[in-house]
Amino acid sequence: MFLGCQFSIYPMSSDFIGVILHAIRALDRYKDRLEIATDDLSTTLIGPPEALFPALKESFIAAAEAGGHVVMNVSLSRGCPGEPDDPRCRTDQVRARNVAGEADPVAAALGHMQRVPPSGVKTAAQIALYPLGRIDYMDQIGACIAFTKRAGVFAKGKHFCTKLAGDAADVFQAIEQSFLGFGAPEDHVVLTAVVSKGSPSAA
Amino acid sequence: MFLGCQFSIYPMSSDFIGVILHAIRALDRYKDRLEIATDDLSTTLIGPPEALFPALKESFIAAAEAGGHVVMNVSLSRGCPGEPDDPRCRTDQVRARNVAGEADPVAAALGHMQRVPPSGVKTAAQIALYPLGRIDYMDQIGACIAFTKRAGVFAKGKHFCTKLAGDAADVFQAIEQSFLGFGAPEDHVVLTAVVSKGSPSAA
Repeated sequence: MFLGCQFSIYPMSSDFIGVILHAIRALDRYKDRLEIATDDLSTTLIGPPEALFPALKESFIAAAEAGGHVVMNVSLSRGCPGEPDDPRCRTDQVRARNVAGEADPVAAALGHMQRVPPSGVKTAAQIALYPLGRIDYMDQIGACIAFTKRAGVFAKGKHFCTKLAGDAADVFQAIEQSFLGFGAPEDHVVLTAVVSKGSPSAA
Repeated sequence: MFLGCQFSIYPMSSDFIGVILHAIRALDRYKDRLEIATDDLSTTLIGPPEALFPALKESFIAAAEAGGHVVMNVSLSRGCPGEPDDPRCRTDQVRARNVAGEADPVAAALGHMQRVPPSGVKTAAQIALYPLGRIDYMDQIGACIAFTKRAGVFAKGKHFCTKLAGDAADVFQAIEQSFLGFGAPEDHVVLTAVVSKGSPSAA
């Protein structure tokens, strides 16, 4: 199993360097559990979801502390057949939280959502799920969209993606469950997400 | 056929509103050929590739004119079975530039690349191709990566994506050929790209 993401923080501010460095420093406490590498385009995180998702959320919230408009762009991937099995990525969380084989996957996915303390950061987001290498992938996408509608974070459908809104804690939890839950545990699944805070265009 | 994208411009500047509005105004001359809709997260473009790709490139270059560090994030999609057939999207370009059935798809894709006038904007980018609903999708991804290596824009492989570098005109042309060329013409294909200019972290 290989699991990880590429993510970037875009602070709409002339002090963007300071904000990005602050957001990357928030990853420091995950250094023993995640491979972390940053270049001029993005930061790579490799490791188990139980470390990766808290790291992503805390990095976003650190960036949000600067105020103003900040966006996180993330491409998550699990099970890519072109990547080696990595002991760091071994986890029971994909299997434990996966709902692809359930009779009612939406209800099962909702059952994995926990009451999480709010972050106080109001966000808008959009996500797209890509379960690769399977003919019936649209069923998985449909179930994932139905899940977001009942998880309290759905804002609206858009072409090519689903718009979410809510506290960052709820939005990141819905992203995590969407990524782990849909597409079989052994599938190659990609989820792209844009999470935004403080846009002056927000309704 | 339904073809389009969601894209966003992220100017790392406190004058981000002015830069974004300038980049969106660059789309005006495509209004009769593309459906264009902007919300707080992204701009939707729907229409044929022969209008969509020039629009994307011109919007990025307009944003780059402001100086400093600017990123475009784009998710392109064609052939999504959940979208209606749209007369605006009808084009012979997907079939004409597709190479998925060729004996040597890399050479065929290179044959579709044209000498384009440089924009003068130096970029770094990373792309990922997702041909959906087919078991052998990794072959298409492998051929696309091999194409970027020979198209003169390859920078390096990264986990989950391929890093490109070069003049914006060459990078956008390689993105267009990757998106139209790989995965069969009737497939549902997604390509995500981040195109960056002016990062202070660039080598």
